[in-house]
Amino acid sequence: MLGSVETLGELGEDAAIERIARAARRVGVRAPRVRLGIGDDAALLRLAPSEELAVSTDARIEGVHFRWRSESPRHVGRLALVANLSDLAAMGARPLGFLLALAAPPQLALGRFDGLLAGLLHEARTHACPLVGGNLCRARETSLTLTVLGAVPRGRALTRRGARPGDRICVTGRLGAMALEVARAERGRGRVEQVPEPRLAAGRALARLRGIGGAIDVSDGLELDLVRLLGPAGLAAEIDGSKLPLPRGFAARCRRAGLDPLELALGGGEDYELAFSVRPRGPSPRALAARLGLPVTEIGRVVARGRGRGRPARGWRHLGRG
Amino acid sequence: MLGSVETLGELGEDAAIERIARAARRVGVRAPRVRLGIGDDAALLRLAPSEELAVSTDARIEGVHFRWRSESPRHVGRLALVANLSDLAAMGARPLGFLLALAAPPQLALGRFDGLLAGLLHEARTHACPLVGGNLCRARETSLTLTVLGAVPRGRALTRRGARPGDRICVTGRLGAMALEVARAERGRGRVEQVPEPRLAAGRALARLRGIGGAIDVSDGLELDLVRLLGPAGLAAEIDGSKLPLPRGFAARCRRAGLDPLELALGGGEDYELAFSVRPRGPSPRALAARLGLPVTEIGRVVARGRGRGRPARGWRHLGRG
Repeated sequence: MLGSVETLGELGEDAAIERIARAARRVGVRAPRVRLGIGDDAALLRLAPSEELAVSTDARIEGVHFRWRSESPRHVGRLALVANLSDLAAMGARPLGFLLALAAPPQLALGRFDGLLAGLLHEARTHACPLVGGNLCRARETSLTLTVLGAVPRGRALTRRGARPGDRICVTGRLGAMALEVARAERGRGRVEQVPEPRLAAGRALARLRGIGGAIDVSDGLELDLVRLLGPAGLAAEIDGSKLPLPRGFAARCRRAGLDPLELALGGGEDYELAFSVRPRGPSPRALAARLGLPVTEIGRVVARGRGRGRPARGWRHLGRG
Repeated sequence: MLGSVETLGELGEDAAIERIARAARRVGVRAPRVRLGIGDDAALLRLAPSEELAVSTDARIEGVHFRWRSESPRHVGRLALVANLSDLAAMGARPLGFLLALAAPPQLALGRFDGLLAGLLHEARTHACPLVGGNLCRARETSLTLTVLGAVPRGRALTRRGARPGDRICVTGRLGAMALEVARAERGRGRVEQVPEPRLAAGRALARLRGIGGAIDVSDGLELDLVRLLGPAGLAAEIDGSKLPLPRGFAARCRRAGLDPLELALGGGEDYELAFSVRPRGPSPRALAARLGLPVTEIGRVVARGRGRGRPARGWRHLGRG
């Protein structure tokens, strides 16, 4: 009797896949591009002739990206899909669907399995990104490796290429909230409960604008992600720390927790805001905010690597490998 | 100095990704459909307007799918991509590219990392399936989660659906060789060194033929995979064990190892042959072999579930959940 089954191992692989398929049907995610979903050797999807496929993969691993004691399974599932959707956002892509490779120990409680699934499917419905397939297998630690598929108008994707010296650097939204919550949870103060919003609509709007250079999503912290955006082209960023968009009341909350707000905003990951470069004569932050439907803040500029070295006065800091 | 770096952890994430990108450039896999590969938030690929996208994901986990003591890292890498390409073969798809999510402990020796990569890229070149992106992260055990992308002519994919009672069941190639090698390696006799061939060309040829029902690749053993092919439609298989295509000298080698050849051929996985159903008036095994460029053997037929129950005489056995 299913009633007495309490772990993934007792359920078995094929029954677990059927459980996933049933949950996905129940949630009823819109899937206009999916010709064949869960249950075959591969999923089949359609693109319009005017589109390109954007595809990205990302893993969330127990003990590295999440801990059961500080996060609910549902939250782990939600964040896993959000992290992946954010990569599509950074390309200006519209989600088509995702695949889930779930590895877990046989003793994983079915309650956790169902929670992970519920979190994934919640975000799947919110962002019209159906689960189209996946893989399930045994492992010592739980991990979710997701692959997201999206569509962009041909030749119009945002990429990390294209920033030039003199471009202004802008970010959407506010930085640091996730980093503060994670830092507090790591000290045993509260759980991680926030779920950032993948900036899908903003990314698509950005891809349609003129005067935009390169773009990236802030997943590993602004500092590191700007190095990734600019470094390969021999560029670096000069950031005015006083301009970083912090959440309301953030500095006070950081001080109470004994943390440095600037460090969290620059170094903390998982905000999933978009960072991008704008030509000197490109749209203003105000015009960008109107088109993207989000706050947009200009925080610095792109420089040739080696220029602006050191740590200038008044909060300016130089990012990049020199 | 890179010369003194001996583990993945010492190398670091960004340098490891750069090492992957360099190795991929060196191998020089053809990538006509890739507009943007490794190094951005997502890869960009093009499909022809007449095509659909086929996509599948599969994980290979240390201690579950491979053991360092019985397999070379290069072999682990080769098998990982072959397993995934086999899913494309079973859809009749042509490979477009693949993504690699690699999770590994920081102490993973660079020699193993390079070996995995060399094995993946060897198969990538052989099957014109370029590495287009991925993810790298820390974990307690090493795992490779691959996602393969392929293209099929619209509406012409082979699927698991479509088998009917009365269809003949055919398989390509020969079954059991991998299972024997794995069984021997598990007893400490020799290493696993074979690499099965993903039946990509045969799958595409099969997708063009009339009179074919459902198709699946034999990854978890013929018995289980036929249940997956037929079970969801309320069907089962009657297989004539005496007709199973065994490798030359297989029975004798099994006997020497104290193993049952029929059990290995029916239950052993990873042969990556194609199993498919053919209408009663569809092509003969001889005609199929000519079109597929491979041996094709008729091994039984599709029946309604519940018929032919039990274990009939002369090697016939009933597969399916009854």
